[in-house]
Amino acid sequence: MTAYDDLRARIAECHDLFCILNMLKWDMRAMMPAAGAASRGAQLATLSKLAKSIFISDETARLLDAAEAEIESADPDSYKARALRQTRDAYEIQRRIPAGLVGRMAALGPESEAVWARAKDENDFAAFKPYLQQMLALNIELAEAIGYADHPFDALIRQFEPGMTAAQLEVIFAELKARILPLLQRIVAADAPLPLDLWEAEYDLATQKSLCLEMAALIGFDFERGRLDSAPHPFEISFTRDDVRITTRYDANYLPMSLFAALHEAGHGLYEQNIAPELTRTALTADFLGQYAVGGASFGAHEFSSRLWENQIGRSREFWRLHFGRAQALFPEQLAAADAELFYRAVNRARPSLIRVEADEVTYNLHIMLRAEIEMALLEGAIAVDDLPEFWNAKMQDYLGLAPPDDRRGVLQDVHWSFGGFGNFPCYTIGNIMAAQALAAAQAQMPDLAARLAAGDYQTLLAWLTENFYRHGRAYGTDELLTRATGEGLNTAPLLDYLEGKYTDLYDLN
Amino acid sequence: MTAYDDLRARIAECHDLFCILNMLKWDMRAMMPAAGAASRGAQLATLSKLAKSIFISDETARLLDAAEAEIESADPDSYKARALRQTRDAYEIQRRIPAGLVGRMAALGPESEAVWARAKDENDFAAFKPYLQQMLALNIELAEAIGYADHPFDALIRQFEPGMTAAQLEVIFAELKARILPLLQRIVAADAPLPLDLWEAEYDLATQKSLCLEMAALIGFDFERGRLDSAPHPFEISFTRDDVRITTRYDANYLPMSLFAALHEAGHGLYEQNIAPELTRTALTADFLGQYAVGGASFGAHEFSSRLWENQIGRSREFWRLHFGRAQALFPEQLAAADAELFYRAVNRARPSLIRVEADEVTYNLHIMLRAEIEMALLEGAIAVDDLPEFWNAKMQDYLGLAPPDDRRGVLQDVHWSFGGFGNFPCYTIGNIMAAQALAAAQAQMPDLAARLAAGDYQTLLAWLTENFYRHGRAYGTDELLTRATGEGLNTAPLLDYLEGKYTDLYDLN
Repeated sequence: MTAYDDLRARIAECHDLFCILNMLKWDMRAMMPAAGAASRGAQLATLSKLAKSIFISDETARLLDAAEAEIESADPDSYKARALRQTRDAYEIQRRIPAGLVGRMAALGPESEAVWARAKDENDFAAFKPYLQQMLALNIELAEAIGYADHPFDALIRQFEPGMTAAQLEVIFAELKARILPLLQRIVAADAPLPLDLWEAEYDLATQKSLCLEMAALIGFDFERGRLDSAPHPFEISFTRDDVRITTRYDANYLPMSLFAALHEAGHGLYEQNIAPELTRTALTADFLGQYAVGGASFGAHEFSSRLWENQIGRSREFWRLHFGRAQALFPEQLAAADAELFYRAVNRARPSLIRVEADEVTYNLHIMLRAEIEMALLEGAIAVDDLPEFWNAKMQDYLGLAPPDDRRGVLQDVHWSFGGFGNFPCYTIGNIMAAQALAAAQAQMPDLAARLAAGDYQTLLAWLTENFYRHGRAYGTDELLTRATGEGLNTAPLLDYLEGKYTDLYDLN
Repeated sequence: MTAYDDLRARIAECHDLFCILNMLKWDMRAMMPAAGAASRGAQLATLSKLAKSIFISDETARLLDAAEAEIESADPDSYKARALRQTRDAYEIQRRIPAGLVGRMAALGPESEAVWARAKDENDFAAFKPYLQQMLALNIELAEAIGYADHPFDALIRQFEPGMTAAQLEVIFAELKARILPLLQRIVAADAPLPLDLWEAEYDLATQKSLCLEMAALIGFDFERGRLDSAPHPFEISFTRDDVRITTRYDANYLPMSLFAALHEAGHGLYEQNIAPELTRTALTADFLGQYAVGGASFGAHEFSSRLWENQIGRSREFWRLHFGRAQALFPEQLAAADAELFYRAVNRARPSLIRVEADEVTYNLHIMLRAEIEMALLEGAIAVDDLPEFWNAKMQDYLGLAPPDDRRGVLQDVHWSFGGFGNFPCYTIGNIMAAQALAAAQAQMPDLAARLAAGDYQTLLAWLTENFYRHGRAYGTDELLTRATGEGLNTAPLLDYLEGKYTDLYDLN
């Protein structure tokens, strides 16, 4: 055994523990009876502490030193060298984060989340405020521990999207707003109800599940190495590429809820299922900071895959031209009076709305920008937690022209802040940007791709995404991955072109 | 913190890891896609090694020494003192079992099980033989490591039923055979087909599940702290008393398969759900040898609960007098021509059969004795693996009057030996004996119990079982538990009286 192999064996064991943490979370969200929460909390805390203590132990440091000395002369671009650099980075950061801070965040989390849930139900921001203040203070401590050059937000987003900064996001957001806000105004002016409301009918849940399974398999999700269950908040999680779990949720009337959540999570799943097998149980499928087993390059990169399959493929006219018949066969009465074009329009209606998770492709990024800008302002002290509802409502007016009637449908709507998840929101927008760039590049490189997709061949796109993105796991950061695949780093233009093109056509804006 | 509390905190963490191992196994058997097997194997191996290294560490020894010194003067009968003695016993045994031996058994297990499965399918004992020989050799090594006075079987059964010995089992088996074999002969002579075969109809699987859920809830299984899923080999497993998972399996025709497996596993679940809450995450709900989180006193004690609810309650005439109507309401066509008495007879037909898992209450223990006697003979070298098929078939002839037409339906039928599980089979019979003793004692102590059960009050029996058995967790061994509850240790007479009484009536043998 070489020193690198010794380190690799230790990392493989950390990876196993991360897979197990994922498994405990999957079960907690998709299977566990509610009464199991307290003991599950203890199990997660024990295993998480153990995994961290193994990862930041002196023995890991010794193995890391030896492995670095051993591969000093190796190609710095090789997977080996990259795996080692990432392990070293994560090791140094994890050593800097005090165990006490992690403990305080973990201890406060469940209570804070429970208080938030009650506060949301009762539209009582004041009840949640002291918890949010504590969580903000802990996140500021965390940012200091991780370290940053310019903005504390840079430290926090590093947990999810390494390399991204508040300064870069400001530029990105400005570019997006400059074209999305006018587009939205034109859509609002042109919007009118469709001739038929498809979501008044009832859609049997078991049949919805059949449709979800079929559509997920159609785009390439491998059910031999995965499964679909239901969960109140849909998610994807994996325990190596050979066991990828996706979830969706069901509404008896609103069929798109289960369908597009399934396609979205299957899009996440396709990433994980198509990582190179040799990266299994290595540093290149481990997020050491988050203690996740995950093969996607970053949270943004993961959203790129889910958004691409959900929106650019799953919400395309071509997709429903081919598959509406199948949906109609499963729901003959409910969809009797509809056709592919109406279905396409019904799943793409864009309108300003109060709730992020119900937003369409056009408004979604505005919801994200609002949240990221609030987080930045809070972290730099430009606003206080006290000012939050007012600040939120003002931005909702600016971006979406809406006044939230209460905090429940305003500042209290998302769970993220309650458990301290600052710095995560921008990943959704980064994913949207990447998805448009990737599809544009794939189309440029394969002139017949559009025809293939229109004919129901998703395998060609999947193979291209695998070759250019998925298979590398976490070997490359978002920008490097994009540059290798498309010739340029993060660029908002393809997303904006895509949105303008699609919605100009849909709403006949010319 | 006292020294005892320090130890307790460490044991609580071991307990968390055992709960997590249980969770990984539940998922593996009830949820996991087949392709996940290899990575799940790695996860189980890593966590199991870690849990063992924590448990047998010098730090645990130090805490154990300190705690023992601290509570020297405590009541030796207290939970605290008992928890400590059991932790010490398990610690000493675990230290004696070489890591290398555990590793070799773990490494051989999956391959051996796979070879067994193929050998069973292809009726090819010769293919499985070399694996069985290795597993036997490893089990003999394990018995030597654990230690025993008289018979290597005593060491192996200690993993499942502490205190039980081969010598005691010989006495028990002789008592059982002396009355079961003549009873069976009389049943065989009197057996005739029922006027109507209920299991020719088709029973919708989702409706079967409804019936299972309803019947399990009826006897007191708390679905707020548990759930029912399907699995090819039904089992119960828990992650503390607040999260108890049971499974069943379905046959489209043979309704009793799902129904009685559900009642059986719910019977296991009732034990776990009714352990005193203060034993959660302590040594008294941990099997340190098997690395299981489990609150039942032993494997035999666990079978006592499952057999009691499945057979003595679930297969009683009184139960179906009350609940047949519900089954008929769910399956109006299939059960149209049946009545409660016919249903009762149909789920209690006794006949010699080749397959253990399909056996009735009368013949079941004969299947167990045959296996236990073979294990003892193998361990003491009285027979060789080569002689196994012949020895098996001769015993089948002796006990059940049947000649297996092939090894598939003979010596190859059970999975247990393939993964090295020697010493486990007698627990089923111990459970049957205990169940009859417990119910007889409950009836003696509560003269109105039979009337209550006949009226559908299962809560009274559950409360009595909780008070006398369940709540103590693993504080007492089988014999002590029985003596405290019933006034005597393991005694075969109540089981034999019960079987003779029930089947004399059923087959009109007088």
